[in-house]
Amino acid sequence: MPKIVDHDERRLELVDATWRIIARLGIEGATMREIATEAGFANGALKPYFPTKDTLLTFAFGHVFNRTNERIREVTAGKAGIPALKAFCIEVLPLDSERVNEARIVVPFWQKAINDPGKATIHRESMEQWHASILGYLAEARADGTVSAAVDDSAVAGHLLNMLLGAQIAAALGPEGQADPGLANQLDAFLTLLAAGS
Amino acid sequence: MPKIVDHDERRLELVDATWRIIARLGIEGATMREIATEAGFANGALKPYFPTKDTLLTFAFGHVFNRTNERIREVTAGKAGIPALKAFCIEVLPLDSERVNEARIVVPFWQKAINDPGKATIHRESMEQWHASILGYLAEARADGTVSAAVDDSAVAGHLLNMLLGAQIAAALGPEGQADPGLANQLDAFLTLLAAGS
Repeated sequence: MPKIVDHDERRLELVDATWRIIARLGIEGATMREIATEAGFANGALKPYFPTKDTLLTFAFGHVFNRTNERIREVTAGKAGIPALKAFCIEVLPLDSERVNEARIVVPFWQKAINDPGKATIHRESMEQWHASILGYLAEARADGTVSAAVDDSAVAGHLLNMLLGAQIAAALGPEGQADPGLANQLDAFLTLLAAGS
Repeated sequence: MPKIVDHDERRLELVDATWRIIARLGIEGATMREIATEAGFANGALKPYFPTKDTLLTFAFGHVFNRTNERIREVTAGKAGIPALKAFCIEVLPLDSERVNEARIVVPFWQKAINDPGKATIHRESMEQWHASILGYLAEARADGTVSAAVDDSAVAGHLLNMLLGAQIAAALGPEGQADPGLANQLDAFLTLLAAGS
């Protein structure tokens, strides 16, 4: 089905153009016209791919989420328990400029999701998936004895997930889109507490 | 200076009207006209108070921050160390519908701040203030012996602050603006780890 593959590729080209425009002009300055020009499309040629800026933003959010999950699969391969949890968190944290740019997509998506139940559901389902992953790593860590703290794993997972979300805000609002290396220290401090409480 | 007081009161009336409109229509649906109508102002009568929606949003964010800080002062009065830290966090977490509504103001403010250095600075300064407060509570907890974990307090404070930010996202995107009581359990789990690691 070469036509479908081609459509997918063009969608990704548009998403890449959208990153660049949003990084330069912000979500509100990122008009469909600006995005078309950036991607080398004729004005109006975006419509078959994304009828509205809203559909483009939802696709871009899904793309960030999927891409992050691909990276997570790679870095957690062959790991379990705390090493897997650490690798997972490091991939989600905005520790380089690519992921700072992703944060700049995700925050506007959240803002839209406040009054768009469909988008809010996409967000919640993504978070449920990550919550389940974290719970799995914690279960492995309890099984191998590295974690034995008397805390509810679901609460720990929810706490950590919120920290990972908050880090996106800090990154998106950081000076000049710089990654904050302090985030890695924050993660280490938390993992130290998690292990030490055992 | 009765005139100034009156102006301040009218600004707060407008902020209250803005909450209600944003809760109902979202930030993008909250036009100056809708806000004027909701507050019982003639259309155009907002201009002397807030020349643009942007200035209104910035004022609303500042108001949420100040109001939260007033509540923090009340609940932490006479407390120190971990009890003060816990009271602080409970006030910041969106644990009731009023604070869920505040989260619905704060997320759009963050989104605007991504491409507005002035707003990003307001956010960062607010966070620096809270970071310093958390560091103070941790120093007290180390002095009274309840915390002795071998972790960097600044990293712990940054971690906790990011969790508090992330909780605003979860609340703003939660089903029907409901507060999530699980947030209190997340905080308890973290404080348990913090004390147990000592």
